Parts: sequence; C-alpha cells; structure tokens
Amino acid sequence: MKFRRSGRLVDMTNYLLQHPHELVPLTYFSERYQSAKSSISEDLGIIKQTFESQGIGSLNTVAGAAGGVRFAPGVNKQDAMEEIGRLCSIMANPDRLLPGGYLYLTDILGDPVLVNRIGRLFAAVFSDRKIDVIATVATKGIPLAYAAANYLSVPVVIVRRDSKVTEGSTVSINYVSGSSKRIQTMVLAKRSLKEGSNVLIIDDFMKAGGTINGVISLLEEFQANVAGIGVLVESEGAEERLVDEYISMVKLTDVDTKEKQIHVIEGNYFQFLKEQGEK
Amino acid sequence: MKFRRSGRLVDMTNYLLQHPHELVPLTYFSERYQSAKSSISEDLGIIKQTFESQGIGSLNTVAGAAGGVRFAPGVNKQDAMEEIGRLCSIMANPDRLLPGGYLYLTDILGDPVLVNRIGRLFAAVFSDRKIDVIATVATKGIPLAYAAANYLSVPVVIVRRDSKVTEGSTVSINYVSGSSKRIQTMVLAKRSLKEGSNVLIIDDFMKAGGTINGVISLLEEFQANVAGIGVLVESEGAEERLVDEYISMVKLTDVDTKEKQIHVIEGNYFQFLKEQGEK
Repeated sequence: MKFRRSGRLVDMTNYLLQHPHELVPLTYFSERYQSAKSSISEDLGIIKQTFESQGIGSLNTVAGAAGGVRFAPGVNKQDAMEEIGRLCSIMANPDRLLPGGYLYLTDILGDPVLVNRIGRLFAAVFSDRKIDVIATVATKGIPLAYAAANYLSVPVVIVRRDSKVTEGSTVSINYVSGSSKRIQTMVLAKRSLKEGSNVLIIDDFMKAGGTINGVISLLEEFQANVAGIGVLVESEGAEERLVDEYISMVKLTDVDTKEKQIHVIEGNYFQFLKEQGEK
Repeated sequence: MKFRRSGRLVDMTNYLLQHPHELVPLTYFSERYQSAKSSISEDLGIIKQTFESQGIGSLNTVAGAAGGVRFAPGVNKQDAMEEIGRLCSIMANPDRLLPGGYLYLTDILGDPVLVNRIGRLFAAVFSDRKIDVIATVATKGIPLAYAAANYLSVPVVIVRRDSKVTEGSTVSINYVSGSSKRIQTMVLAKRSLKEGSNVLIIDDFMKAGGTINGVISLLEEFQANVAGIGVLVESEGAEERLVDEYISMVKLTDVDTKEKQIHVIEGNYFQFLKEQGEK
C-alpha cells in the first residue's frame, strides 16, 4: 500500500505512540509505506517538532546501520504542574477521609484517564534511569504500575500478601509494617523476576514506608537493584521514614479527622523532573 | 500557536488516541490550531481514512451544534486472528502447567504490550454495547480490565476477597466457587459503583465460572446490569458451566498434567466480533 505524506504522518504517529522506548529502524517505515528514506526522515522531523512543542515527548534519532528512531514519552513542566495541582485539589476533598487517617483513593485509581496521566508523569521523571521492570504491591498500586510501564515499555511484577496456586513457586519474606508495627508477609513468584534486574517500585500511598521497605527486602532475595521509588501520595504523619530516596506526586501534610480537614500539597516531584531537552 | 496541516495531523492523531469514545467538538480543534473549521474537517477526513485502512479504529462525525468527532478504537479481523493465534501458541508452552491443571499466566499478564493488545481486542468486541464501568476481580484480572477500560474510556472497579480500611464501607457476599465447591467471600466498596450501572465483567481465567457468578451476585446488590463478560482464557475442564453468555479469547481444551501437554485453541471471540463498518 502506497501512502501520501499526510497518511504516513497519521500512521507513524500512532505507531510511535504504541511503541515507546523502542528503537524503530528507518527501513521499517520505508518498507511499511514504500517510501524513500529521505521522505521518512522528513516525516520524522515534522513529528519530532510537534511532539516536542506539544509536550508529547521526545523523538531521538540514532545514526548508523543499527540506528533508527526512538520515542520517549514526556511531559512539559507546565502541564505536570497543572496535573499535580489538580490532583491536590481532588484529594483535599474531606469526603475522602477514612478512619485511621487514610484516604479513599479508589475512585481516583479507578479512573483510567487519571491513572494514565499519573503513569506518564512517573515515566517522564524516571525516563533516564535504567529500568528493566516495575514492581508494585497488590492491589492499589497495580493500575499506576501498568500505566507507568506502558510509557516506559517494561514489564510489571506484582508482590502479593499471600501466595496463590497460579503463581507457581514463590519467594516470601516477613517484614514489620511501618505504622502498625505488625509482622506481615510478602510473596513474589520465583519465575517473575530475573536475578540482577533493575527495578522501579511504584505504589499508591506511603506512610512510614514499611510496605516499600518490605518490597526492597524481597527484591534483595532476587539480587535485584532498586532503580527508583515512586509514590502517588506520601503522608507526613509518620514519625520515622523507613525509605530514603523516593519521588512523590502529592504530600498529605495534615489530616484532622475531628475537623474533617485534609491538607494536600505538591510532593517532591519537581525536584527530580528535568525539563525536556535538559541533560 | 499557528499550525500547518502536517503538525495538526500529528497532534490531532495523538489527541484522538488519548481520548477514545469522547465527542470532541470541531471548534475545539479549530481553536487549538487557530484554523478554519473547513481545514479541520479535511484533516479529520485524512485521519479517518488512515485509521480505518490501518485498523486503528473508526472516526465518526456527529453533525449539528452539539456535534463533533468521536474515535472508537478497533481492530481488523486479520490482526485479531493473528493476535489470538499468537496467544494460543504462547499459552500452549508446557512449562506453564501448574498443579491442579492451572496455567502460569503471570508473565503474559505482566507484559503491558500484550495486555494492551488484549484490552484493545476486548474493547473492539464490546464497543457497541452500553457500558458504564468495568468490574474485575483482584488480582490477575486488573491489568486486562484497565487495558480494556482505556480503550472504552470507562472507570474500573475491583472486587476483592477481603475488605480493607482504605475502601471505606463495603458490600460483601458469600458464594460457592465452581471448581472447589468451597464458600468464599467477595467485597466491593459501597462508593465505587452507582446503582443501575451497566457493567462489563473482565477476568483472566474462567473454569466453571464460579468467580464470575459471584461477581454477578455482588453486582445484583448494586442493582447493576451485566453488559457483558469477557475472559482471556476459558477452560473446558469444567463439568458444568455456571455462566451462559461470555466472550473468550482462547480456550484450554485439554490439559494433560502427566504428559505435560496443553492444548489451546481460539475461543468464541470471532462469533462476536463485527467487521469494521459492519452493523
């Protein structure tokens, strides 16, 4: 099938968006559209300019025989700030308050549009780290982990509280939860993670950090490296933080269960976000 | 910011892909690009043609003052057949066999690219039903449910085995599992589902259908309607099927745990898939 430039631009845009972080050889496109490589290069120039001016992401050309083009989803800072500002106001709704100072996040985590935007923010801030896989803890972290994994193009492994027959053999650890100080169990299917993997940990909520600390201990059993930690909400209420370096989108600074007031501010996200094109 | 046609095509393609099943007024695009509506209409014509010829989906124009354009992700039958064929051969690998005739699917469900493709197939086959929300059961169905929800642009609710403080008040039911005949519990957060919702149930695996039957009973407590049931794998081993109408991608017809052989064929998916443009 022969394509005009306009049709190529539409189809290439779709293709690149569906294959983030994948090196696509120019010959792939020139065969797909039966067009000269020089035309494909011009097309990519147009796409690159639009992607970068609109904050869709960056398009990098790798020269040489093994070369091609790679799309890395990104965000511009302005959009990210609006997004996180919006999250803060959604979360500050006092109806979210649950016993124990927890927040009801189920509706937020159930909205694929919001979840995707959060995943994109995670992917943008972690995009220059070496990540082989994303780990999360069942159940609430799962949608966020997949959304980020989509944009980073890496697989997801899910740490569970209990082992299931459908997981095959598992590795388990006991750990002490940060806030309740109780002993809890975590398991991960043996087959699901290769030794020495670089793992990004994604979760929805971090109080003292006991759960994430548990995940780190479990990852040690697989000789895995922690490439980063990202949480949607961090809560300031914890006396002692068990986890050092992490990136949070929003921060719960004050929860008044009596007065039914929640105070939510921006997390530390922008301390880590590089501007597009910045090195 | 003023756009040329080429830049508009790239940005509009991205915008439409990010907003499936949403009615976008033409004025939105003409303001976004400071271009005449007639130019926008021509752009949309080019995008429509490419989307439909490449099996990306359909683009429908709604005329009138409240009109606009709506993108519905689709698949062409050829791609869907290749996709499901590929799934069959991935699943027939005897290393997947677990005690009890279960299959190890964790790697498949952990691959966001595969999961997205499966989600897109679900979205395509259910695209003309009225769906307000997708329900799934923790943990394995979650990624499939979100992938489909993304393409259908509806929220996800997650049915759990146990209630958690972060869910607020919940509704729970007891049900009898189809294969083990044991009594089990299922819970759903009260706030998570509006009365009278049209619910698509998505899960990874169905044997006798006890779990899905449990979800149906739970949904009855919310006066919800079941708009459809989609499973990735159905297993033929069950003596008695508890669920009538469902759509499956692949079917496990024979599991020989002694000989370590798995026989996987196409499910009933293509009995339900309409060709693009077909009514």
